Amino acid sequence: MSEHQHDTARDKPWGGRFSESTDAFVEEFTASINFDKRLYRHDIRGSRAHARMLGKAGILNTNEVEQILSGLDKIEQAIDSGELEWKVALEDVHMNIEARLTDHIGIAGKKLHTGRSRNDQVATDVRLWLREQVDGVSHELRRLQRALVDLAECEADTILPGFTHLQVAQPITFGHHMLAWFEMLQRDHERLQDCRKRINIMPLGAAALAGTTYPIDREHTAQLLGFERPARNSLDAVSDRDFAIEFTSAASLIMMHLSRFAEELVLWTSAQFDFIRLPDRFCTGSSIMPQKKNPDVPELVRGKSGRVFGHLLALLTLMKGQPLAYNKDNQEDKEPLFDTVDTLLGSLRAFADMMPHIQPKAERMRQAAMQGFATATDLADYLVRKGMPFRDAHEVVGKAVALGVETGRDLSEMRLEELQAFADIIHADVFEVLTLEGSVAARNHLGGTAPEQVRKQVEAARKLLA
Amino acid sequence: MSEHQHDTARDKPWGGRFSESTDAFVEEFTASINFDKRLYRHDIRGSRAHARMLGKAGILNTNEVEQILSGLDKIEQAIDSGELEWKVALEDVHMNIEARLTDHIGIAGKKLHTGRSRNDQVATDVRLWLREQVDGVSHELRRLQRALVDLAECEADTILPGFTHLQVAQPITFGHHMLAWFEMLQRDHERLQDCRKRINIMPLGAAALAGTTYPIDREHTAQLLGFERPARNSLDAVSDRDFAIEFTSAASLIMMHLSRFAEELVLWTSAQFDFIRLPDRFCTGSSIMPQKKNPDVPELVRGKSGRVFGHLLALLTLMKGQPLAYNKDNQEDKEPLFDTVDTLLGSLRAFADMMPHIQPKAERMRQAAMQGFATATDLADYLVRKGMPFRDAHEVVGKAVALGVETGRDLSEMRLEELQAFADIIHADVFEVLTLEGSVAARNHLGGTAPEQVRKQVEAARKLLA
Amino acid sequence: MSEHQHDTARDKPWGGRFSESTDAFVEEFTASINFDKRLYRHDIRGSRAHARMLGKAGILNTNEVEQILSGLDKIEQAIDSGELEWKVALEDVHMNIEARLTDHIGIAGKKLHTGRSRNDQVATDVRLWLREQVDGVSHELRRLQRALVDLAECEADTILPGFTHLQVAQPITFGHHMLAWFEMLQRDHERLQDCRKRINIMPLGAAALAGTTYPIDREHTAQLLGFERPARNSLDAVSDRDFAIEFTSAASLIMMHLSRFAEELVLWTSAQFDFIRLPDRFCTGSSIMPQKKNPDVPELVRGKSGRVFGHLLALLTLMKGQPLAYNKDNQEDKEPLFDTVDTLLGSLRAFADMMPHIQPKAERMRQAAMQGFATATDLADYLVRKGMPFRDAHEVVGKAVALGVETGRDLSEMRLEELQAFADIIHADVFEVLTLEGSVAARNHLGGTAPEQVRKQVEAARKLLA
Amino acid sequence: MSEHQHDTARDKPWGGRFSESTDAFVEEFTASINFDKRLYRHDIRGSRAHARMLGKAGILNTNEVEQILSGLDKIEQAIDSGELEWKVALEDVHMNIEARLTDHIGIAGKKLHTGRSRNDQVATDVRLWLREQVDGVSHELRRLQRALVDLAECEADTILPGFTHLQVAQPITFGHHMLAWFEMLQRDHERLQDCRKRINIMPLGAAALAGTTYPIDREHTAQLLGFERPARNSLDAVSDRDFAIEFTSAASLIMMHLSRFAEELVLWTSAQFDFIRLPDRFCTGSSIMPQKKNPDVPELVRGKSGRVFGHLLALLTLMKGQPLAYNKDNQEDKEPLFDTVDTLLGSLRAFADMMPHIQPKAERMRQAAMQGFATATDLADYLVRKGMPFRDAHEVVGKAVALGVETGRDLSEMRLEELQAFADIIHADVFEVLTLEGSVAARNHLGGTAPEQVRKQVEAARKLLA
Repeated sequence: MSEHQHDTARDKPWGGRFSESTDAFVEEFTASINFDKRLYRHDIRGSRAHARMLGKAGILNTNEVEQILSGLDKIEQAIDSGELEWKVALEDVHMNIEARLTDHIGIAGKKLHTGRSRNDQVATDVRLWLREQVDGVSHELRRLQRALVDLAECEADTILPGFTHLQVAQPITFGHHMLAWFEMLQRDHERLQDCRKRINIMPLGAAALAGTTYPIDREHTAQLLGFERPARNSLDAVSDRDFAIEFTSAASLIMMHLSRFAEELVLWTSAQFDFIRLPDRFCTGSSIMPQKKNPDVPELVRGKSGRVFGHLLALLTLMKGQPLAYNKDNQEDKEPLFDTVDTLLGSLRAFADMMPHIQPKAERMRQAAMQGFATATDLADYLVRKGMPFRDAHEVVGKAVALGVETGRDLSEMRLEELQAFADIIHADVFEVLTLEGSVAARNHLGGTAPEQVRKQVEAARKLLA
Repeated sequence: MSEHQHDTARDKPWGGRFSESTDAFVEEFTASINFDKRLYRHDIRGSRAHARMLGKAGILNTNEVEQILSGLDKIEQAIDSGELEWKVALEDVHMNIEARLTDHIGIAGKKLHTGRSRNDQVATDVRLWLREQVDGVSHELRRLQRALVDLAECEADTILPGFTHLQVAQPITFGHHMLAWFEMLQRDHERLQDCRKRINIMPLGAAALAGTTYPIDREHTAQLLGFERPARNSLDAVSDRDFAIEFTSAASLIMMHLSRFAEELVLWTSAQFDFIRLPDRFCTGSSIMPQKKNPDVPELVRGKSGRVFGHLLALLTLMKGQPLAYNKDNQEDKEPLFDTVDTLLGSLRAFADMMPHIQPKAERMRQAAMQGFATATDLADYLVRKGMPFRDAHEVVGKAVALGVETGRDLSEMRLEELQAFADIIHADVFEVLTLEGSVAARNHLGGTAPEQVRKQVEAARKLLA
Repeated sequence: MSEHQHDTARDKPWGGRFSESTDAFVEEFTASINFDKRLYRHDIRGSRAHARMLGKAGILNTNEVEQILSGLDKIEQAIDSGELEWKVALEDVHMNIEARLTDHIGIAGKKLHTGRSRNDQVATDVRLWLREQVDGVSHELRRLQRALVDLAECEADTILPGFTHLQVAQPITFGHHMLAWFEMLQRDHERLQDCRKRINIMPLGAAALAGTTYPIDREHTAQLLGFERPARNSLDAVSDRDFAIEFTSAASLIMMHLSRFAEELVLWTSAQFDFIRLPDRFCTGSSIMPQKKNPDVPELVRGKSGRVFGHLLALLTLMKGQPLAYNKDNQEDKEPLFDTVDTLLGSLRAFADMMPHIQPKAERMRQAAMQGFATATDLADYLVRKGMPFRDAHEVVGKAVALGVETGRDLSEMRLEELQAFADIIHADVFEVLTLEGSVAARNHLGGTAPEQVRKQVEAARKLLA
Repeated sequence: MSEHQHDTARDKPWGGRFSESTDAFVEEFTASINFDKRLYRHDIRGSRAHARMLGKAGILNTNEVEQILSGLDKIEQAIDSGELEWKVALEDVHMNIEARLTDHIGIAGKKLHTGRSRNDQVATDVRLWLREQVDGVSHELRRLQRALVDLAECEADTILPGFTHLQVAQPITFGHHMLAWFEMLQRDHERLQDCRKRINIMPLGAAALAGTTYPIDREHTAQLLGFERPARNSLDAVSDRDFAIEFTSAASLIMMHLSRFAEELVLWTSAQFDFIRLPDRFCTGSSIMPQKKNPDVPELVRGKSGRVFGHLLALLTLMKGQPLAYNKDNQEDKEPLFDTVDTLLGSLRAFADMMPHIQPKAERMRQAAMQGFATATDLADYLVRKGMPFRDAHEVVGKAVALGVETGRDLSEMRLEELQAFADIIHADVFEVLTLEGSVAARNHLGGTAPEQVRKQVEAARKLLA
């Protein structure tokens, strides 16, 4: 099919009933080839399975199937090597490939579209592609999780202040903090696996919307393509984009998590916190300020989170008012999904590459934990163990802290008599609970920040990753 | 604790270190009691389990536990009956209940907060509450699914035009259409169940952020509260709101589905389509136009979808820049979540109540299917079965349709000779495939619109619902 | 109209053509009275103007107008004093008021709805209400801007480190920083005024969608209600919700700005930055950690930003697929708009109350500015003034900074010979440009951070506020 | 500067203090050149003005300025002709151009960056670019508005049913309907002009964040670039992205409007409505269904609305937690903004091209208006004019409609005696008000649907467009 033949819509694969050619700008505006060409491998893979099934069902003969398979191989090579010229006049990846196939093999090429429609074809392509991407995302997630577990193990005893409201709350261990991030990603991993089940359903055979009059064998096609099962309803199969939305939701949660990690890394590399060092190769400088070394990677990832949230909203809004079955609106599902995957993979990769190389500054973190009365709760708990109700102990310690603020001293820097003025049940053993090590070691239950617990959780985490 | 004592922050449960009272507007602005009181049953339930665990672990004695349990019973009754006066000065549901408990039972009340914090307490309350709501939502989903399956069975043979691009595409069966909706809701149901697993994890015992120094037994509390397991990391446990976001994502998909159903119901009740009748009791009128009968319920549900999407975005945005662990921002998680549940339950209920009573107008739908050349694809398939490649058959039928448009006739209304002018392989048997019944019956494979397939899917659906 | 009369839809104000009563749950689900009662004053105000216009146009006689006005006065008093019982069966604020009016004054009450519909009535009510709210928001904006200008004036010479990428960049003045916030709010103020023009257009007279057959005088009604002009197209008038969306966009920008201020306040009150002190009365404590003093107000405001963004999206999504003219979906415009206004007013008030009382810690900020090589750019500029191209100067200073990092000293702490080793054009006068005061004073052009510029901008700002 | 020199970060324009090269993936991940190269003309334009100002202020000498200007000309030509090779190692459009300039003209090139930073440079570039785009968008808006006014004039008398709730409400004129769309776009135009004022402010001279130590003349640069004025505060100038958000809000409203138009066009081209014909060249077909002619353009535009809403959310989320001044997150502002402009321009163009060619089907619309009791309100108004209170008249007509529904007749098809049975004040003149022409002609006030009003509004619209 030569280029000039596409002067009129009548030369479009659907042009029979049309009496005038498509407006040139409309052709450009409505074509999807500029972005859906990305699906070409999956489109070809789907066509291969469809052809084989048509053969098995006796709708095509063996020879036709052979020709189609060999023609598709050649086209795939041509695309791989950049030789195939995509044509806007052919609208999309499906028609570009099919037209080229017919150029190559003639009449058998025209038979490939028997018993299917672009409506079920594109839905199948996107699902095949997304299933693969989910596996790629999972791989990066796992790589990042491993980095966090390694860090947690190394830094199981390293103390830093835990914050609530960005105010020093209680001493915690760096390993425990890394495992908090691990847990977030673990949920992300589970969510992706749940989502994958619902991606892995095959629309092919739904045809335009109602199924087809050919005796197709959808179970067979599904098996060839590794789908769990064919979709149970043809109308639903061509109009369903839930899988894209659910994936983008899961991606939004991952990006939200990375954005939270990023927020902390940015804080931690500030001169004021100075808890960790990022290697130079993950930072950039300033065109005007010669001293600058900026934590670009975390900042950029933090900035990219909104982008994925936006895609999620775009997809929900896209679908919300559409009657069944397929509408052209659906063409708009691809770009947000593609960009979500690219953003997610890039961000995860950047973090997975970077995290093994962050350098915690144990001394700085320890100093920070010494400020801010991080062991005040330990003093309250001490009083409770001595018999005081918790609410009263809280009140007593609050007064001791007020004295500390006034006199610029930590609780551990007060004299025993000073402390006893607040509660005479305080004895010399109080100073043990006021140490940072004592404080973290005491939180020694499932989920607590004690080094012993961190090590147990590291072990459990390794099992989950195995 | 009497009202006037709250004149100063020093009388707040945390006032020890404070030297001036909270600003009156700030007190009002930062309090959550106006909305989180809704959690009171779940807060009390959590406190009961916490008290029992403290008893089992020897942190409280049996007498203290008894007093607490009996005090909580009385408070719950007081709230149930509307007797308890909520106080903004006590900030939230937790402190309102605890203060009242101490009023009732004295010193033991002050011991209840041992080994926990409001940070883990509120996360536990919301999870208990949401777990219950998920079950309520699932119940309504199932009710609506059942209505659809019943309709599908009744109308398995009823023919209407299937649309793509809101243009008549191919004839389908009304039962098949109802089952497309069923499939959407079935995915929703599965997603909710997956989400429920991640809701059903217990934060309690994480305390403020690092765990506690008391020898608590979190497995025991989890068991008492029906949680699958305690959260594995205390920092994560108090800061995690993934479960709320994942639920709101699932809710957004449900609302998107209902909005799509609504769009079709609104179309179908228009004078132009007139495919179904909605009983008067689901409609309202106009204050100025005496003839109006408006499909308010579907319109309103369609309108409510954006509301839930907005809540989803609000929650994602809320979390995206927060460092660990708990920040006050998180207080903003409740109102979007509460309104999501209310909107979702109301919308599902309205649909589940209404759908059994819609009245399909078979004759109108049949007439509509007769227009628009709905069987053109059948003619193309006919030509393929006679040996013509699909693409050529498509072209031939396109020309026949163009004649039909010109002369105002359907394909089935053309004479045999006219059709043969387009392709001489057409014979008299063509008219069988051009009937509506022939067309739907021919799509008789898994997922196809044939009445036989609809009946099979009805059976399969009943099994899923059982 | 007594309660039991509403047993059937036939007793609804629109029930003439209906043959069965509204379903009880549907009645509840579709009613808006629970939230739109908030508009009662504006509804009554609109009705007064409508009645006067009907009188002037000869559609009602003088006596009828008098009765209506006096009846509306009584109803307004009854609502003000909480005596009027709102009825769900009467659906909305309009019908509740009209039904009560007819109870009071009889037949004249039934004439009030002549020449209008609830479609134009509600659009008018919301615009009247929102116009008032815009003025309230502007008032709070101005109050906050004044607090910032006062702070800027007081702290025009106070030095703190300016950050980019949360890394120390260059010394700036606190006054300059406050004026940056002022500028953001100034744009917000301008945007609100632009938005107000488009709010202040009157829908009344559009009736249901097409206008009315009565000889109404819309210019007169517009004048009575202070609207700039009547809407020019009746279809547009009843379906337009642009004004609500535009307002919510403007509100989103304000909340985004407040969230940015909040982020900085939270950082500045952390132990690590410790740049300012927030008075106790704007903070709260912890139920478990006796030492905590949390910056709740900024955190909460930061958290509330997403909520307003969500409402914006909800409104856009609400409108995006609606055909003309009015659809029931539109009822969903009110709750997001109401909550946007409440959130915005509360957040602005909290900031306007708090900002005059923040206490900058000049010594801490000065120390922080001494770290991080904040005057490195000044050294580069010094070299440029001595004849070196900027890019080369940047390179030279970068090397000096690398030495500083290695040896733990600021540039101003190096010996002259050390500096000369990097560039021999450096002389003893270099130490003047390396001081913080020298650095800020040198940025003395329009928009620069020099104290002199800050004072000029303070003066200019006071003129804008006047 | 040759390629291999960029092996290490030390060769970056900011590499002085860095000790290791940037990670290859990080370099790619953080570079913006792939999308910000689009700004090259505006970057060069800004550099020209900056160089001239530096010359005027005596910071550069005349010769240096000449060299820079001539060098920039050559680079612009090289880019225009596709000769310049963009390098990821040079990060962004600014450094790519500056590096090439220094290659060309040597030392003078290194002086161009004096007194500016990439922070103020990029903000200036984007504003220059967006100002131009706003003018392009306004042009397309005006073109579409003109098409609507022309249609309105042609079809001022053409009657179609006006809908509320997609139920027939009252007869309206097609011209009136087109003018409703015109009004929406008119507000869009005004909003864009308001937004343009806030875009047209110059950041240049803010340098990194604090201004510069050189005696720059920002008023002069602003004048050269056509900006209204320089930004008043340097911190704000580099961190402000309000203009991008405000533009995207305005774009979202335009897309929402186009989506509403699209919804109606899709309905109107359905076989059920069949109110208009879209020329073939704005439609496409189906790969499987030979009869299909799909309204792709409106569907696609409707689908694209969510995309722009998503970008709006992405930008708001991007900014919401950033402390002052510039953070790397901000790099994420460009892609959503670029895509918003592309989507908006494409969608407007498609509509502006298409609308002059839609073909209203007057007879179909008239038939549709005859159904659905469209003149019921006219009958009620008739009764009011005869002295019946409006509410009673509404009730009476409701009963007449119920009879019509039962007997399948319109009000105008009932006999006079039948109508009199509902109200004896009905006389033979009633049939005049029950005609479609009578109904629309009677709504003859400002904003009403009467043909006379449509013609007046057409005239007024032409003045607005002039």
